[in-house]
Amino acid sequence: MSKFCDEQERLKRRLLEMAALVEQMFDLSIRAVTDREASAAEKAFILEGQINLIEIEIDEGLINLLALHQPMASNLRFLVAGIKMNTNLERLGDLAVNIAQAAKTLLQYPPAAPIVDIPLMAGLVRSMLRKSFDAFALSDVELARGVLPCDDAVDRMRTSCYHQLRAAMEDAPEHLRQSLNLLMVTRTLERIADHATNVAEDVVFFVEGVEIRHGLGLQGQKQKVR
Amino acid sequence: MSKFCDEQERLKRRLLEMAALVEQMFDLSIRAVTDREASAAEKAFILEGQINLIEIEIDEGLINLLALHQPMASNLRFLVAGIKMNTNLERLGDLAVNIAQAAKTLLQYPPAAPIVDIPLMAGLVRSMLRKSFDAFALSDVELARGVLPCDDAVDRMRTSCYHQLRAAMEDAPEHLRQSLNLLMVTRTLERIADHATNVAEDVVFFVEGVEIRHGLGLQGQKQKVR
Repeated sequence: MSKFCDEQERLKRRLLEMAALVEQMFDLSIRAVTDREASAAEKAFILEGQINLIEIEIDEGLINLLALHQPMASNLRFLVAGIKMNTNLERLGDLAVNIAQAAKTLLQYPPAAPIVDIPLMAGLVRSMLRKSFDAFALSDVELARGVLPCDDAVDRMRTSCYHQLRAAMEDAPEHLRQSLNLLMVTRTLERIADHATNVAEDVVFFVEGVEIRHGLGLQGQKQKVR
Repeated sequence: MSKFCDEQERLKRRLLEMAALVEQMFDLSIRAVTDREASAAEKAFILEGQINLIEIEIDEGLINLLALHQPMASNLRFLVAGIKMNTNLERLGDLAVNIAQAAKTLLQYPPAAPIVDIPLMAGLVRSMLRKSFDAFALSDVELARGVLPCDDAVDRMRTSCYHQLRAAMEDAPEHLRQSLNLLMVTRTLERIADHATNVAEDVVFFVEGVEIRHGLGLQGQKQKVR
């Protein structure tokens, strides 16, 4: 079983390295929008290629562990959570790329539309990513649960950005393209927050075996996975 | 092993029932947009609750199968693909709900913005869903591979819709809200197509053990999962 633990630890480290790349991509893509930095967008594109390769490597490693051993209880839950974490991280990389692409489009035009509450929203989403990844690294369920309420705050910010940007479109229709791209950035931030929430839920699942998706664990209908 | 096969078959049937619900939700949410039918949107909301419950039931079933047996090769691949399929189906339900919500917002205003190529795009995305679900039901790799090129066609339609809707916003700024909501519908359709593509890729993976994500299998760098 010690071989199993070694390999499980190695895969966990790889997942955390992948998470660190996602954080870098996020920072780069947001900087490309807020500081109008084309090179930051380019760096994000390059990192995505790395993430895609790591995803496949980790999936193979997890499936091999399942095939070669007969993991039970918490080990089995870790493997299933690992498969889901891996998918979430890859999607997060894709979403950061979407923001970097919007940044590149924005750079084709003079800075016109207000970037409204995007830096504020990005800051909150960034903290959700960090907390959910730390929760995974430390198997810290309390930290993971702390991520969940932030999702509602992000949704409210997104609605507020929507109203601000729609007003900007009405006031300055000549800058419609810029406003539409910024709107896409806010929607992508909201999706990134959704994925950070998924990661946090997966942490609770693999540590406690408690299903908290769709608010089940919160309503007391806890379900233990054997 | 026969108990294992029975339970595997049962879970496959449940996944297909969930897929049928996703198709219903998709049809309802699109009808809510194109035919301005509020009751169709409401029905989609109700079906989402069912999907969320089935997702948890199937995840538990798959994890129990993993825990109680020691599946190898194609059985193991089926279980891993099942976990991913389950996640994809749940997300597809969420996305259909997003379209139904946009439809409800659209109904607050008189029909103004042109719905551009949305019916055409929805038709193509619908066929991708059907093909990828059929490919899963029949373990039909050729059918699954046929889904992949459609994703590019959907991306092109989305770009075309974007240009049409941006022109509509410029021509009729008084109908900005409607155009923005329709734009969101086209982006959601694009994401649904992405998930249908994921389902198709998972079918190839579980039938052949070939990794085709990120174009790997298409470039001849086939990877067998042991």
